[in-house]
Amino acid sequence: LAVDKAADFANYFCTYAFLYHQKEMLVDRVRMDAYFSSIFRNLKHFVGKTVLDVGTGSGILAIWAAQAGAKKVYAVEATAMARHARTLIAGNKLDHIVEVIEGSVEDITIPEKVDVIISEWMGYFLVRESMFDSVIYARDKWLKPDGIMYPSHARMWIAPVRTSILEQKQQEYEHAMADWNSFLQDTNLHYKVDMSCLSKPYKEEQQKYFLQTALWNSLYPNQIIGTPVIIKEFDCLTTTVEEVAAIRSSFKMHFYESQRKCSGFAGWFDVQFKGSPSNPADEEVELTTAPSAEETTHWGQQVFLLSPSVNLSAGDVLSCSLDITRSRQNHRLMDVKFVHQVERASGEVSPPITSPYAIE
Amino acid sequence: LAVDKAADFANYFCTYAFLYHQKEMLVDRVRMDAYFSSIFRNLKHFVGKTVLDVGTGSGILAIWAAQAGAKKVYAVEATAMARHARTLIAGNKLDHIVEVIEGSVEDITIPEKVDVIISEWMGYFLVRESMFDSVIYARDKWLKPDGIMYPSHARMWIAPVRTSILEQKQQEYEHAMADWNSFLQDTNLHYKVDMSCLSKPYKEEQQKYFLQTALWNSLYPNQIIGTPVIIKEFDCLTTTVEEVAAIRSSFKMHFYESQRKCSGFAGWFDVQFKGSPSNPADEEVELTTAPSAEETTHWGQQVFLLSPSVNLSAGDVLSCSLDITRSRQNHRLMDVKFVHQVERASGEVSPPITSPYAIE
Ligand SMILES: Nc1ncnc2c1ncn2[C@@H]1O[C@H](CSCC[C@H](N)C(=O)O)[C@@H](O)[C@H]1O
Ligand SMILES: Nc1ncnc2c1ncn2[C@@H]1O[C@H](CSCC[C@H](N)C(=O)O)[C@@H](O)[C@H]1O
Repeated sequence: LAVDKAADFANYFCTYAFLYHQKEMLVDRVRMDAYFSSIFRNLKHFVGKTVLDVGTGSGILAIWAAQAGAKKVYAVEATAMARHARTLIAGNKLDHIVEVIEGSVEDITIPEKVDVIISEWMGYFLVRESMFDSVIYARDKWLKPDGIMYPSHARMWIAPVRTSILEQKQQEYEHAMADWNSFLQDTNLHYKVDMSCLSKPYKEEQQKYFLQTALWNSLYPNQIIGTPVIIKEFDCLTTTVEEVAAIRSSFKMHFYESQRKCSGFAGWFDVQFKGSPSNPADEEVELTTAPSAEETTHWGQQVFLLSPSVNLSAGDVLSCSLDITRSRQNHRLMDVKFVHQVERASGEVSPPITSPYAIE
Repeated sequence: LAVDKAADFANYFCTYAFLYHQKEMLVDRVRMDAYFSSIFRNLKHFVGKTVLDVGTGSGILAIWAAQAGAKKVYAVEATAMARHARTLIAGNKLDHIVEVIEGSVEDITIPEKVDVIISEWMGYFLVRESMFDSVIYARDKWLKPDGIMYPSHARMWIAPVRTSILEQKQQEYEHAMADWNSFLQDTNLHYKVDMSCLSKPYKEEQQKYFLQTALWNSLYPNQIIGTPVIIKEFDCLTTTVEEVAAIRSSFKMHFYESQRKCSGFAGWFDVQFKGSPSNPADEEVELTTAPSAEETTHWGQQVFLLSPSVNLSAGDVLSCSLDITRSRQNHRLMDVKFVHQVERASGEVSPPITSPYAIE
């Protein structure tokens, strides 16, 4: 599982070097309000304390920690964005408190252990980007034994959904295959080459692309057609990289009444700022990325289509298992394996159906 | 100039592993017809000969070379597309002639020198992707002294253009900056952070993005407002990597009458299949990516905007120089420096204006 650093930079870090991309996060009001409140409503965690901000980006969380009374803040950023963070921190007259360090948190050194680690490390469906690994690494190396994690907890959610994206993607897929077939004829006619032996791999490639790749979407609450389920909870003080790298969950999906068709399921996350057992928050704050009519986040939800869709009768329950592992080509992306069986109200159980997905 | 292979794969090669992307090239009729004609109208270059196809992709050029009578074709492909090429070649019953080798042409070994090197290595504005390097490398290592290059010649063209993309991109840029300004206010108000010290780098980032990045476009011929100029010619038999890696050209742009505004310039290329001096083609074939009313290619043209635009009077001439070098972060992308001075009909010459661009 050795990671090539240059490839990781090309694949992952490069986008974070743009202010444009940092700004997209800085205008996410749900995200901003949660971190802002978690800090300023729990000043006791910051006043006179030392703080490590893992992946400071523009420097925003480090600045708030300093404004909240921290004695010293180490703000670590892997990309050249570190230089803009330095400008921003000086511009806000906090350079006597916040020290920006350009480098991977895995590589850098700070002169002391810290009271608080703060980080905004969450990717789509929580685990995309695998940045939690870096926070866990930093925790084990730099957090004092009685230190606090901001956020302190994280949870992954799943719920069945109905969405017209299913029909749209099915049509796009059909269209792509019709196009392929006329391509086969043209190539035969004009260029004397028979491409039909590539129809099977082409079909697989297009299925993957249109139907087996998780889709970003901002769902309305009424698109959720069954009870959301927590498939995984993390205590940020104790979670290990192994627990994050391979997530397995078995659960049942219960549908709300009158729902007759399930076009897929959605995954999202929430995180909590609760302090630590020995030093709990004065006021707990939660950041949720669940479907919402008013407040949406840049994370949205990840939608996994079921093609064909599952037709439901009253009382049907889905017995499911979900496996989330890392893609072999790129450890920051995920492979998902979803298995479901319909448990009919009659007691009859359908054979298991396996659906593979990529989170890209 | 050491290239990290894993990063190069992440940045560049990965897209070529998709049949979808290979298909985009295979449906480009201008491209296909040129290679097809160059081979089948010059059978003497292939009958009984040995051929190396650098970057075989789907295998199409190797198949044609074999169909044209080659004795042996080595088809080298860096990505896993090599496996599909093998399927396609077997499906067309040519696996006794074409041998697919998966690997970079820089790394692989073949048992003999070849009579012909064929390759479709051209990127946007010819040089993007820097794949010509690999073809030159293969030529110096594997082509017989009297061997032939397919294509044999390549040329880069520049012409002044008018295009409403200029106004569109200027507006998008203005919009992005207006948005930034309201972001500054919001962030000050809600989150107590003054972001104004990042306005200068943000402005630069947005200018680069909207106005200083070459744009793909398929221009109509009547958008060309002056005489196209050849800025560089390559003889594929003798060109060195150094000549490709840093291209410098000085030239004059002459405008057609009645043109009053120049919104930028466009770059494109053509390649010729002429055989070699000792073994010229029976029928020369040319592949051009110039603006055309009927036949467009997937390469289109690269448009470089001049913001502000240049206002012309009758008889004005632009005295220009163009420098194309490789981007430091990614050797497959280019930095362009364009300098122009207006030579008025009166003899007056304006001060030089330098415009930097990225080809991304
Ligand atoms: N291992 C690592 N070491 C240092 N920085 C990292 C890192 N992994 C990710 N990052 C950085 O972490 C940032 C995550 S985005 C969050 C940015 C900022 N804290 C905010 O809340 O707005 C990115 O800028 C990314 O470049
Ligand atoms: N150094 C190198 N060694 C081997 N293959 C290379 C290479 N550089 C680029 N390639 C491959 O060259 C191909 C160029 S695209 C052209 C594909 C095919 N010859 C056709 O004409 O349709 C890509 O598939 C790319 O993966």
